[in-house]
Amino acid sequence: MTFTQQDQEFMQLALDLAAQGIFTTTPNPSVGCVLVKEGAVVGKGFHAKAGEPHAEVMALREAGNQAKDSIAYVTLEPCSHFGRTPPCAKGLIEAGVKKVIVAMEDPNPLVAGRGISMLREAGIETVVGLLQEKAEALNKGFLMRMRAGRPYVRLKMAMTIDGKTATMTGESKWITGELARSDVQMERAKSSAILSASGTVLVDDPSLNVRWSQFPPELQQRYPEQNVRQPVRIIMDSRARVRAYHQLFQTTSPLWLVEFEKKNRENLPHFCEVLTLSSNEHQSKLQTLMYDLGRRQINSLWVEAGANFAGALLAEELVDELIVYIAPKLLGDQARGLCHLPHLTKLADAPLWQLESITQLGQDVKLVYVKGVPTC
Amino acid sequence: MTFTQQDQEFMQLALDLAAQGIFTTTPNPSVGCVLVKEGAVVGKGFHAKAGEPHAEVMALREAGNQAKDSIAYVTLEPCSHFGRTPPCAKGLIEAGVKKVIVAMEDPNPLVAGRGISMLREAGIETVVGLLQEKAEALNKGFLMRMRAGRPYVRLKMAMTIDGKTATMTGESKWITGELARSDVQMERAKSSAILSASGTVLVDDPSLNVRWSQFPPELQQRYPEQNVRQPVRIIMDSRARVRAYHQLFQTTSPLWLVEFEKKNRENLPHFCEVLTLSSNEHQSKLQTLMYDLGRRQINSLWVEAGANFAGALLAEELVDELIVYIAPKLLGDQARGLCHLPHLTKLADAPLWQLESITQLGQDVKLVYVKGVPTC
Repeated sequence: MTFTQQDQEFMQLALDLAAQGIFTTTPNPSVGCVLVKEGAVVGKGFHAKAGEPHAEVMALREAGNQAKDSIAYVTLEPCSHFGRTPPCAKGLIEAGVKKVIVAMEDPNPLVAGRGISMLREAGIETVVGLLQEKAEALNKGFLMRMRAGRPYVRLKMAMTIDGKTATMTGESKWITGELARSDVQMERAKSSAILSASGTVLVDDPSLNVRWSQFPPELQQRYPEQNVRQPVRIIMDSRARVRAYHQLFQTTSPLWLVEFEKKNRENLPHFCEVLTLSSNEHQSKLQTLMYDLGRRQINSLWVEAGANFAGALLAEELVDELIVYIAPKLLGDQARGLCHLPHLTKLADAPLWQLESITQLGQDVKLVYVKGVPTC
Repeated sequence: MTFTQQDQEFMQLALDLAAQGIFTTTPNPSVGCVLVKEGAVVGKGFHAKAGEPHAEVMALREAGNQAKDSIAYVTLEPCSHFGRTPPCAKGLIEAGVKKVIVAMEDPNPLVAGRGISMLREAGIETVVGLLQEKAEALNKGFLMRMRAGRPYVRLKMAMTIDGKTATMTGESKWITGELARSDVQMERAKSSAILSASGTVLVDDPSLNVRWSQFPPELQQRYPEQNVRQPVRIIMDSRARVRAYHQLFQTTSPLWLVEFEKKNRENLPHFCEVLTLSSNEHQSKLQTLMYDLGRRQINSLWVEAGANFAGALLAEELVDELIVYIAPKLLGDQARGLCHLPHLTKLADAPLWQLESITQLGQDVKLVYVKGVPTC
């Protein structure tokens, strides 16, 4: 399959449109759509929020009669099922679109190629795979949930040059500078949920909410305060150690406390729910949690936790991405480390991460690593 | 003082010329000189090696008669003293140069403004300070030795994402990838000397020499193998633990073993020297070593050592620059740490480093930090 330079540019435009939804579409994927007729864009759309129209519908509305005989560029396979909105494949067919170019198939079992079949059966030329990698990158969370049944897990680590998160006595506020902390707010906002453990709550007493006032200025412009979606806050709290006086209860965004056997707890406010999960011999507690969160439609999980919880997630290979903020300090090898892992004697046994990006944030450095084998 | 755009360009050219000497001029500074007449370059020169002509002499030779009434751009104040070569200020005067623009004054007590005075007394307009910061950056080692009497100390650290240098059992070959190791060869080659400690020799048995075959290709082209200068290798060996069977003795570049009281040692080969230093109540052993190396004309010191020696240098504030290579692995908090430092309870007490550069080397990241207060 070959695509023209123009095809690439229109799909890139669709991807840019899709990206406008990344803070709000969860549990849905972010999708963009561009309709092109005789080389000119006649309709543009993106999905903004679950329950609101899909990208294709927005673009078709904008195009009106112009949609007839146009080419549709869509970043994800148009849906084939009636959900909260009618199937988009049907909409494209009815509008008389002559060709559909799709960046990637939708792994959602409700779609999974049926949108494409529906288009082809209606006689519309439909091709798949243009800028697929970029389309994948846009919806890592949704795609992981659809393919693996669990969220895409991103572990945040804020540390000194020598990999320390706090002094010996536990002081950790603030390791990194203002720009890095602002970046963390942006990353939290992009996530479906934030996961931590009761140990961190007891020591640091965080709110784990999204603070718009700390967003980077360009994000504040693009994403007004009243639209900010607060991610679900999830605390691993097997021993019921989280208490009503903790900061978590000072904001009212959803708070899920996770336990593995029923515990007595004080009266909890309306925004707080207790998940009593049962693990079994085939599944560890953390795996049980992850698949439960998948069923609860959590696409992407942002983890902020201490060395033990971070280490446990890493040891069970449940971390898909590391986000490391490095502050220009040294604390020495007696300070608190980044993650507790099982003994390793051979270097070659350490799993490899793949460097995805490097960003300078003031005097701090942000490194992003994804799981996998390096290509160079 | 204002300089024209053209002045800046010619000084930049002189700086680029000077940079051609950075692998070879030690213990001398790297200096470049450009002679410009009626807007055209008539002579260019750089200092290549101690004992060989200075940059000004090279440029004057190239210019010949054209030097008369030209403007000289020099990256460091022309010398005023007879060393291994006659004073360059005198050369510029005799050639009839009409103006001299100098990037920075030479802090060498043998010069220290006298070169500039000599030019001015001869009636030549002489201005100082064009691209001074860049000129400073070119000769950090030489300038530190002239100003503080000790070398500029650069501490190399190769670590995992979580700041580990080796597994629990000490395996450390190789934490980083090929490109990072090649970069280390380049950094060694730029240094006057390489410092390590006997502990590292006993564990890793390194050669600590410069291996041209591992240089990055562009450096191999610029710097032919037969010109490679082997830095002096300096081992802190207070307990005389280094033995003839160590790799250090397999190459014949200078090797200095440092002790603080006379020890019995086996017969040592001709390239090996023992420095028996005496520290006193006013100076720690490490300070004594540094000032001794300053007297021995070591401009820049590249340190490759373990957590204890690195930590001791850091704790005594004898490190001017950190060069951190980060490999895409996690080893967990039981693995070996980067540096051993005295207890710190308050984060605010950790000295701040200033991020100077970020470089991606394959899957590894190189971060360079310099001592000091961040400007942003």
